[in-house]
Amino acid sequence: MATSAMRKVLIIGGGFGGVFTARHLQRQARGRIAVELISRNNFFVFQPLLPEVAGGGIHPADAVVPLRLFLPGVTVRVAEVRTVDLAKKTVHVAAGRGGEIDQLAYDHLVIALGQVVDLSRTPGLAERALVMKDVTDAFHIRNHVLGCLEEAATTMDPRRRTSLLTFAVIGGGFTGVETVGEVQDLIRKALPFYSSVRAADIRIVLLQHAARILPELPEHLAAYAADRLRRRGVEILVKTGVKAVDLERIETDSGQTIDAGTIIAAMGNAPSPLVQRLPLPREHGQILVDRHLRVRDNDHVWALGDNARIPLDDADDASAAHAPALAQFAYQEAKVLAANILACIDGRPLTPFVYRSLGTMASLGGRQGVAEVLGMKFSGFLAWLAWRLFYLSLIPGLSTRVRIATDWLLDLIVSRSIVEIRAGSTPSGFVRYFAGDVVVEPGVEPGGVYVVVSGQFRIDAPDDPATPPRVLAAGSWFGNRFRDQELATNEQARADTDAVAYFVAQEDLARLATVRALLDDHHAPAPIGL
Amino acid sequence: MATSAMRKVLIIGGGFGGVFTARHLQRQARGRIAVELISRNNFFVFQPLLPEVAGGGIHPADAVVPLRLFLPGVTVRVAEVRTVDLAKKTVHVAAGRGGEIDQLAYDHLVIALGQVVDLSRTPGLAERALVMKDVTDAFHIRNHVLGCLEEAATTMDPRRRTSLLTFAVIGGGFTGVETVGEVQDLIRKALPFYSSVRAADIRIVLLQHAARILPELPEHLAAYAADRLRRRGVEILVKTGVKAVDLERIETDSGQTIDAGTIIAAMGNAPSPLVQRLPLPREHGQILVDRHLRVRDNDHVWALGDNARIPLDDADDASAAHAPALAQFAYQEAKVLAANILACIDGRPLTPFVYRSLGTMASLGGRQGVAEVLGMKFSGFLAWLAWRLFYLSLIPGLSTRVRIATDWLLDLIVSRSIVEIRAGSTPSGFVRYFAGDVVVEPGVEPGGVYVVVSGQFRIDAPDDPATPPRVLAAGSWFGNRFRDQELATNEQARADTDAVAYFVAQEDLARLATVRALLDDHHAPAPIGL
Ligand SMILES: Cc1cc2nc3c(=O)[nH]c(=O)nc-3n(C[C@H](O)[C@H](O)[C@H](O)COP(=O)(O)OP(=O)(O)OC[C@H]3O[C@@H](n4cnc5c(N)ncnc54)[C@H](O)[C@@H]3O)c2cc1C
Ligand SMILES: Cc1cc2nc3c(=O)[nH]c(=O)nc-3n(C[C@H](O)[C@H](O)[C@H](O)COP(=O)(O)OP(=O)(O)OC[C@H]3O[C@@H](n4cnc5c(N)ncnc54)[C@H](O)[C@@H]3O)c2cc1C
Repeated sequence: MATSAMRKVLIIGGGFGGVFTARHLQRQARGRIAVELISRNNFFVFQPLLPEVAGGGIHPADAVVPLRLFLPGVTVRVAEVRTVDLAKKTVHVAAGRGGEIDQLAYDHLVIALGQVVDLSRTPGLAERALVMKDVTDAFHIRNHVLGCLEEAATTMDPRRRTSLLTFAVIGGGFTGVETVGEVQDLIRKALPFYSSVRAADIRIVLLQHAARILPELPEHLAAYAADRLRRRGVEILVKTGVKAVDLERIETDSGQTIDAGTIIAAMGNAPSPLVQRLPLPREHGQILVDRHLRVRDNDHVWALGDNARIPLDDADDASAAHAPALAQFAYQEAKVLAANILACIDGRPLTPFVYRSLGTMASLGGRQGVAEVLGMKFSGFLAWLAWRLFYLSLIPGLSTRVRIATDWLLDLIVSRSIVEIRAGSTPSGFVRYFAGDVVVEPGVEPGGVYVVVSGQFRIDAPDDPATPPRVLAAGSWFGNRFRDQELATNEQARADTDAVAYFVAQEDLARLATVRALLDDHHAPAPIGL
Repeated sequence: MATSAMRKVLIIGGGFGGVFTARHLQRQARGRIAVELISRNNFFVFQPLLPEVAGGGIHPADAVVPLRLFLPGVTVRVAEVRTVDLAKKTVHVAAGRGGEIDQLAYDHLVIALGQVVDLSRTPGLAERALVMKDVTDAFHIRNHVLGCLEEAATTMDPRRRTSLLTFAVIGGGFTGVETVGEVQDLIRKALPFYSSVRAADIRIVLLQHAARILPELPEHLAAYAADRLRRRGVEILVKTGVKAVDLERIETDSGQTIDAGTIIAAMGNAPSPLVQRLPLPREHGQILVDRHLRVRDNDHVWALGDNARIPLDDADDASAAHAPALAQFAYQEAKVLAANILACIDGRPLTPFVYRSLGTMASLGGRQGVAEVLGMKFSGFLAWLAWRLFYLSLIPGLSTRVRIATDWLLDLIVSRSIVEIRAGSTPSGFVRYFAGDVVVEPGVEPGGVYVVVSGQFRIDAPDDPATPPRVLAAGSWFGNRFRDQELATNEQARADTDAVAYFVAQEDLARLATVRALLDDHHAPAPIGL
C-alpha cells in the first residue's frame, strides 16, 4: 500500500490457531508488520482444560488466558466478525452493546474461526443437552450437576430422584471421556455432603457411537481407560447412537431408553455459518488450503485450525491424510503459518506444514489418565501427572500458569467446593412434571405463564371443595394470578398426569409487554412472529 | 408433638443470621433437637467480600461458603420459601426446576430472610443500575467494567468513549465506598493492558446523599477515606441525591448531569415482600422482636439480622436504639438466639441481646483501609491488613479460608486477571445510539427486532442509491432480515439522530413464537399481556 509503509496482517478468531499465529508473527517480525487480532472474547479459551472446569477442579477464569496479557504489541479488538469482503480486502466487525460497526482493511487475512456445535440432527437434543464448547458452558455443567444433587437430596418423588441422579454424556472421544471422568470425580467428591444420597443411587452413562471409546488413541490405552472408568461406576455403551431425546428420556438407536436429568453433548462439531458463507473453496465444510496453509488462488488469505482442511501429504486423492481438529495441530500450524506470511512478504519460499507428534494424552479425572508419549504408553497416575504438566507447559503466560497450578494444588489439599452458582429466576422453557406435582400453590404468584404442551393439569381450590375443578389439556394455559385473575387467589395447579408445560417467565412477558406498549402507542403493526 | 420426641427448629434464610443460628444450635444441642435450614442457594454469601469480587481480587466461588460443609448435622434444604402458616406451624417451600412443593412443620421458627434491593423510587434506576447484593451481581460488575475498557479501547466515537469510561457508584455507606475503591483498583491494574486508554480518560464518581461518606464511622476516619479515594482519582459528591436516570445520564438533585455508562447502586435496601406479607408486628418493614429476639405474642417465632427490628435497650420510645443492618450484629445475635431457643425448650430464663463492639473497618481497595478497633483508629495499609485478617477469622470453614487466603496471596504476586466473562448473545433491552451509529449492516442478520423508542433511524441501501431512504420514528420497528423481509438484504439501518431502541433478541422472539404455536394449535386464547 502506498499510504502506509507497514503491511497489516488481520487474524480473525482468538482460539489456538489465531492466538499462536499472532504471537509468532509479532515475535518474528517485531515492528516490521502490524498484527491485529479480532476475538469475540478478551481471552483465549484453553479448551483442553474445560473438562476440569466442568468437574470443578479449576476456576473458570483460570482456564482462559487474557489476550492482552499474552499478546503485547498485537492490536487486540474484542468484536464479532460479521462479513469478509475478499475483493476489497476488508473485514466488517461489530463491537460492544451499541452495535458499533467498523471496517478493517488487511494485506493478509488469517481465518481461524474454529467450529461451532450443531446438535440439530438429533431431534430434541439441542433443547435438552448441555454443551462443552465455552468456559461458561463448562462452568454451567458443574453447577447443574451440583444442583441435581441438591434437589435429589430432598425430593420425595422417587421417579424425579432417579432422573436427577442419572447423568449421560454423549460422545466417546477425548472431550466426552474427559468430561465423564471429571463429572464422576465431582460427584464422588461431593457425595459425602449429601447424606441422603448413596453412591449406588447414581447412574453415569457414556454413549459412544463407534465400536470403542477414544478412537484417537491406540486400542490398548482406550481399553485401559474404559476399564478404569467402569471400575469407577461409569456405564459405557459403545456402538450406541442417540435416536432422539425428549424431556423425559434419551432413546438410543438400539432401542434402550435412559431417563437422564442431565445430558451432556460432547459431539456435534460443525463448520461455522460465517465460514460457510465465504466464497472460498471448501471440503467437508472446512476451508481448503495447500500444505503452506494458504487458500488456493487467494494469495493473501490463510487458514488454520479447526476451520481449515489441511493436507498432511501430497496425495491428491481419497487416500490423502488431513490434519485432525486438535489443539496440538493448531498450535504447530500457527508457527508454520506465521513464518510463511513473513516469507511471502519478503519473497522467500514457503514451508509446508509437517506435524511432529509429541504424543497423545487424556485425563480420566480422579488422578488417572492415559498417555502415549514418544511411542511409550503410560496409564494411571503417571499419565495424569504428565497430562497436567504437559498442558501447563503449553499454557501461555506466567500468571495463568501460576493460577492453574495453585488450583491443582488446592484441589489436592482442601475439599472441592460444592457451591452451586446459578442465575436468579427460573428461565422460560419446557418443564416436565410427574403426576401429582404441585405446579402453583394457593396464594403464591406463579412468576409467569404455563402453556400446557402434553398431559393434563388440574386447577382446584383446596379450601373451597364446592368449586368444581377445571382440567386443562394441551393448548390451554394458566398462571399470572395477580395480574389477570386467570387463577383465583385460592386456587392451586397440579399435574393430573405426567405432563409437560412451557413456562414463560414474568420477565419475558414483561419484555413483550414493553414491545407491545411501544408499538401500540403509535399504532404500528406488530412484528411478525410476536 | 406426640409422634416425634425431638423438637424441630426450622430456620428460613441462609445468610449471616440463619447460618450462625443453625451452627450454634447444632453445637449446643447436639442430638437433642432437629435443626433444618432453608436456603435459596446451597451456599452462604460472605457479603463483606463482595466488593473484592467486584474488583476481581477474589474468585466468586471463594466469597461464599458451602452450607453442607459448614453445617454438619443440620438438614440443609435448597428451596425458595413461599409462605408461612403461623397457625398450623408450617412453612411451604418450592424446590428445584420442577416446582416440587413441600410443607415443613416446625416447633420453633427462625426468620432470617435479610433484605432485598428496591430501586423503584428513583425513575430509571432499576433498569440501568448494576446492584451489589449477590455474588453473581458482584462478578457481573467486574466483567462489565472490563467490558467497558475493551470497548473504549477500540471505539471511534468520542461521546461513546466518554460514556464507557465514566463509572458512577451511588451510595456512600460501607458498600458504596468499598465498591468504588475496588473498582478504581481494578481499573488501575487493568489499564496497562489497554494502551489506547490513559488514566486521565477515566472518570469515577461516588454519589452520597448525606453530608459525608461512611456515616457508620467516626468523622476523622471517614475524612481519611475520602482523602485517599480523592487522591486515587475518585470524585466524591456529597449531599448529592439522584433525581432520575435514563439511558444517557444520571441527573442529580443539584442539577448536575453525569454521562455514566456504568452505574452501580449501593443503596436501596428494603424489606422482602415475603416478610411484608407475614401477619407479624412490624416497624420500618422489619419484624418487631423483644430483646430476646422473640416476636411479641408469638412464643415460637424468632427473628434476627436485617429483617428484624431489634431493640438495643429497654427504652420504649423514639429514643430507643436498634441494631443496624450489619453482618457483625447478625453474627452476634445468632449466638443469643440459639441459646434462647434452647433455654425456652428447657424452661430456663432467656438472655437479652447485648452488642459487644469489636470495631468497625472498611477496605478502600489498593491495599488501603480505615478501621477503629477497641477504640483505636487505624488507617492505610495496616487497617487494610487488619480488615483482611479479621474477615478471614470470621469466615467459616478451613477450605474456604485457605482458598481466600490463596486468592489474596496470588493477587499480590501475579497480575490480576482481566478476563471478561459474559453471556453469549446480546440480551433484549433498551439500547442507546449516537447519531451516525450503524445498527444493522447490509447482508448481516440483525439477530432480533429493534423497536424505536426515541429519535430517528434511517434505512437505506448503500449499493443502490436509487432506492429512497426510509426514516423510522418512535413506534416503528426494523430487523429480522431473513425471516420476514422487513429489511431487504442490501439495506442498512443507521441512527439518524441520537436515538434509543428496544432490542428484542431472536431467542426471546423464538420463545414467544413457541408459545404462539402451542396456543394456535389448539385455538386457545393468548394469555393477556402477550
Ligand atoms: C471441551 C474440549 C476439549 C478439548 N480437548 C482437547 C485436547 O485435550 N487435546 C487437543 O489436542 N484438542 C482438544 N480439543 C480441540 C481443540 O480445542 C481445538 O482443536 C482447537 O481449539 C482448535 O483451535 P482453533 O483456533 O481452530 O479454534 P478455536 O480454539 O475454537 O478458536 C476459534 C475462535 O474464533 C472465535 N470466533 C468464531 N466465530 C467468530 C466471529 N464471528 N467473530 C469473532 N470471533 C469468532 C471463537 O470465539 C474462538 O475463540 C478440545 C476441544 C473441546 C471443545
Ligand atoms: C455488598 C455488601 C457489603 C457488606 N459489607 C458489610 C461489612 O463490611 N460489614 C458488615 O458488618 N456488614 C456488611 N454488609 C451487611 C451484611 O451483609 C448484612 O447485614 C448481613 O448479611 C445480614 O444477615 P442476614 O442473615 O440478616 O441477611 P442475609 O445475609 O442477606 O441473608 C438472607 C438470606 O435469606 C435468603 N432468602 C431471602 N428470601 C428467601 C426466600 N423466600 N426463600 C429462601 N431464601 C431466602 C437470601 O437468599 C439470603 O441468603 C454488607 C452487605 C452488602 C450487600
